[in-house]
Amino acid sequence: MSSPVIVVAPDKFKGSLTAPEAAAAVERGLRRLWPAADIRACPMADGGDGTLDAILSRGGEQGERAVSGAGDAKVGAAYGIVSAPEGRTAVIEIARIVGLVDPLATATTVERRSTRGVGELIRALLDDGVGRFLIGLGGSSTNDGGAGMLAALGLRFLDASGRDIAPTPEGLAALARVDATGLMPALAQAHITIMSDVDNPLCGAQGATAVFGPQKGVAAGALAGLDATLLRYATVVERALGREAATKPGAGAAGGLGFALQLLGGAPRSGAEVIADVVGLDLALAGADWAITGEGRTDAQTLLRKAPFVVAERARRAAVPVTLLSGAIDDTALGTLGSHFAGCFALTAGPATLEDAMKHAAGLLADRAEAIARVWQAAAG
Amino acid sequence: MSSPVIVVAPDKFKGSLTAPEAAAAVERGLRRLWPAADIRACPMADGGDGTLDAILSRGGEQGERAVSGAGDAKVGAAYGIVSAPEGRTAVIEIARIVGLVDPLATATTVERRSTRGVGELIRALLDDGVGRFLIGLGGSSTNDGGAGMLAALGLRFLDASGRDIAPTPEGLAALARVDATGLMPALAQAHITIMSDVDNPLCGAQGATAVFGPQKGVAAGALAGLDATLLRYATVVERALGREAATKPGAGAAGGLGFALQLLGGAPRSGAEVIADVVGLDLALAGADWAITGEGRTDAQTLLRKAPFVVAERARRAAVPVTLLSGAIDDTALGTLGSHFAGCFALTAGPATLEDAMKHAAGLLADRAEAIARVWQAAAG
Repeated sequence: MSSPVIVVAPDKFKGSLTAPEAAAAVERGLRRLWPAADIRACPMADGGDGTLDAILSRGGEQGERAVSGAGDAKVGAAYGIVSAPEGRTAVIEIARIVGLVDPLATATTVERRSTRGVGELIRALLDDGVGRFLIGLGGSSTNDGGAGMLAALGLRFLDASGRDIAPTPEGLAALARVDATGLMPALAQAHITIMSDVDNPLCGAQGATAVFGPQKGVAAGALAGLDATLLRYATVVERALGREAATKPGAGAAGGLGFALQLLGGAPRSGAEVIADVVGLDLALAGADWAITGEGRTDAQTLLRKAPFVVAERARRAAVPVTLLSGAIDDTALGTLGSHFAGCFALTAGPATLEDAMKHAAGLLADRAEAIARVWQAAAG
Repeated sequence: MSSPVIVVAPDKFKGSLTAPEAAAAVERGLRRLWPAADIRACPMADGGDGTLDAILSRGGEQGERAVSGAGDAKVGAAYGIVSAPEGRTAVIEIARIVGLVDPLATATTVERRSTRGVGELIRALLDDGVGRFLIGLGGSSTNDGGAGMLAALGLRFLDASGRDIAPTPEGLAALARVDATGLMPALAQAHITIMSDVDNPLCGAQGATAVFGPQKGVAAGALAGLDATLLRYATVVERALGREAATKPGAGAAGGLGFALQLLGGAPRSGAEVIADVVGLDLALAGADWAITGEGRTDAQTLLRKAPFVVAERARRAAVPVTLLSGAIDDTALGTLGSHFAGCFALTAGPATLEDAMKHAAGLLADRAEAIARVWQAAAG
């Protein structure tokens, strides 16, 4: 028979391969058997890091703009611009502006960090005429409720004396009222999609501060006070804008940036679902015989709307079997994973260290893709 | 479609699973998808250890007899008896009598070890009316040129004074002539198949002593003398029996036991080829859709007539694709292996230690069999 039509839609292999690199490795392995096959690369992401890599590999342009980091220092924030029928769409990973792994950000205490840079980038893009935004919320170092972003977009935070205060947890402790008259008018027409898989509300026991604060450096003794500050902030801002968002699922994402973006009309969606749409996964699956997805590590969490799971769901709807290639598979999850995938395979060719497996990930991925292709070829006769 | 007809023909996974255990694990994984499939288990071996396990899993009876070990102590030597159209056939692994891993054997220096026990077992079986022998030569601790076996079968080794000498390297140093008049007459009608993948001649630079002596404990300074002893021994015995065998390929197997068995009319064959015949591999492959083989470790050596390679060859002749599941695959050999197998897969589900992989080999093997079955099922539609 002729070679099958294959959709290759891996997530990144964190620490070793970007999603486009992983897709290229899989394709390389497949082409050893089927040099001229119709192989459709749809690199995936989940809205966290790797989102720009995945989207830009399918077209679009990458830009960079100097904006405020989480602390005082400026950062060069990379973003993407893709064309869509609805208009130009900006792709923003907030981890590239206020990321937890950024040493500049974490040199400042979390009480003094803000998301101002996110607002600066959105403002600049709005000024350039961009009207649509895909904003990935994973990996932030901030816990300012999105006040910094709102300030950069024109909201003024004032203390009881009417003086401007810093849009940081520390500054917001003195918040008395906000002045929304300067909020950018262009925001009213903007279409904001929030890529986040976090369902937490802004405040309370399941809120941003209680759940994610400690890993950002909030001291145990400071958690309750900070949560109270964000609650008052939310109440004041909601009243000023005439909208509510603090209790909505996802308001607690990215230290409350999810709250502020929802106040601006942003709609949270599963990151992987958004990416699947942007990279055209459904179109690629139409008429395909087989799909191959992958990720660096697979466990029961994968079934919570991670990229390989979204690929599996979309493929199932398109009646396309999908095989998983993973850097490491949690054996205990195999029973559950089994029914979602037409085979789950690790990359290693035998006992190996994690370091070695990661170092040789591209070659191993190509080899494993070739191996499953050979089984496919044998079965398809 | 209905479930495929699958031949499951793995070698042992040395240190973790016998071939029948490996076949059972693969079958377990396959049945998760195809509960009622026609799965044909043909556990394989290569004539070395595991040969009895593989053959007896297909029928036959296991026996045990006390015979001389390589040193002075007696050992309980397990053997098998299988029925064939040509008559009852004994299956003997000489490693179970004079094995290199036997601490009793290696308590004696190699100069004092003999293959007498092998001859004792053959004699007893001949006395019981067994006329056919499959003798696996892997893993011996001896280097006596098979003199011990010949002595047990009735050959007398004499010194210049006509006194009997020990059929050991030490004894043979004084060899002047042999008396073959007592050799068991039943041997003339016996049909002996030697399972060995060793092509070395008895003596010389590629001979038993030079190549395998050191790993059996022959000191570097003693190699030449021992080789000369075996050469004279061979000359004397060949003259007495009116046959030649010392320069034949495989005469150097098992410390020269290959020589003595060939002198008795034994014919060397690739162990895996013999096992394939005994377990009925060709019959199982007839009409099958798919074959799965496996082994503990795979590298370029596998292509030198190891069991998975023999399975691949037989399957190719039967036009049945064969997939390899291996404990560990040498990446550098994958290019060569690729063309022989419809996919090569390791067992591990990610980075793992050899110890862990071996400990969980059965479960991993079942999981991997299930995974490739899912790919097969997807491809076959």
